[in-house]
Amino acid sequence: MDIKMNTRLFAFIGGDVGPWCVTETITLTGDLLLPEVTRVDVIAGSNLQPEYPAEGWVLRGVTSNERYVIREEKTALVAKQQGLGRPAATSAALILIRKNADWWALTQDERRHVIEEQSKHIHIGLQYLPAIARRLHHCRDLSENEPFDFLTWFEFSPAHKADFNNLLAELRASEEWKYVDREIDIRLMRE
Amino acid sequence: MDIKMNTRLFAFIGGDVGPWCVTETITLTGDLLLPEVTRVDVIAGSNLQPEYPAEGWVLRGVTSNERYVIREEKTALVAKQQGLGRPAATSAALILIRKNADWWALTQDERRHVIEEQSKHIHIGLQYLPAIARRLHHCRDLSENEPFDFLTWFEFSPAHKADFNNLLAELRASEEWKYVDREIDIRLMRE
Repeated sequence: MDIKMNTRLFAFIGGDVGPWCVTETITLTGDLLLPEVTRVDVIAGSNLQPEYPAEGWVLRGVTSNERYVIREEKTALVAKQQGLGRPAATSAALILIRKNADWWALTQDERRHVIEEQSKHIHIGLQYLPAIARRLHHCRDLSENEPFDFLTWFEFSPAHKADFNNLLAELRASEEWKYVDREIDIRLMRE
Repeated sequence: MDIKMNTRLFAFIGGDVGPWCVTETITLTGDLLLPEVTRVDVIAGSNLQPEYPAEGWVLRGVTSNERYVIREEKTALVAKQQGLGRPAATSAALILIRKNADWWALTQDERRHVIEEQSKHIHIGLQYLPAIARRLHHCRDLSENEPFDFLTWFEFSPAHKADFNNLLAELRASEEWKYVDREIDIRLMRE
């Protein structure tokens, strides 16, 4: 098997090492409790076998092809978005989401209808670009028993914290979020 | 983590054990050579760690939510399709597919357009139900370096072999197949 140049698999390691200090962890939906940690490390590449912290957690996800965005939206997103790792973007959030069985039983057209026609998910996200940078990781098809379906990593300048909270508030009030049965919101600052 | 009742992860083990005897292996596209094997075993469940045959191969895939089918098509498929394991369905095929980078760079609407509006993939499949039973497994998001993107397992009565070959011929002549850069077709008979 040949080695791909671009990495798609990422691991988020909650423990006591890594550049990101946890400032707050809020369980919004569901009763899954993650062990409390002080730091998070983000590592890339499937060849890395992260050592499970003695008291902590490892969450894995893979970036994938886009499942809902149409060409017109993609063009608008690419024109406005910026990448991770900007020096001023010292605030981050890791939002862990699982959706319920009703969601996964929907057909493609029904899921797109909820996400965009009802919930304006893509449109809302676009309003917060380029301030909020984002990378979505899928977990559901990595194995059968992943605790979450999606891990989304956001980076922004501390000055945009209120904007980021507004973005989350808009999404959480949407029709799409009625299908969310597990959500944990972890806030971080880069040391 | 709770154990799910329904299994989504499957492994296909090419070696010298299992109920399915290989009758033919044809590499249609690409230069990947799988080691020649006489039998294939199909096992379910992520807890099973299949032992890699001394001379053979293991391919893994996960059933997932449907990515392209709309409700109207889903209703038609569910009304006509039958499950795997029918006593008369003693013929099988395992079709291994990888699609190229151009495919994965398309947006959702573009991929749907190629699959159905241009290629009639769903419509063609429907014409061969219930004779041909099928289960699609996704590999691409299991890890970063899976050799194929899709493993599709088909079962049918030997009397429907010509129908099955027609189904494949129709799909292989379609616009969608221009994006296939690796395809291996393995035919089997249940002992």
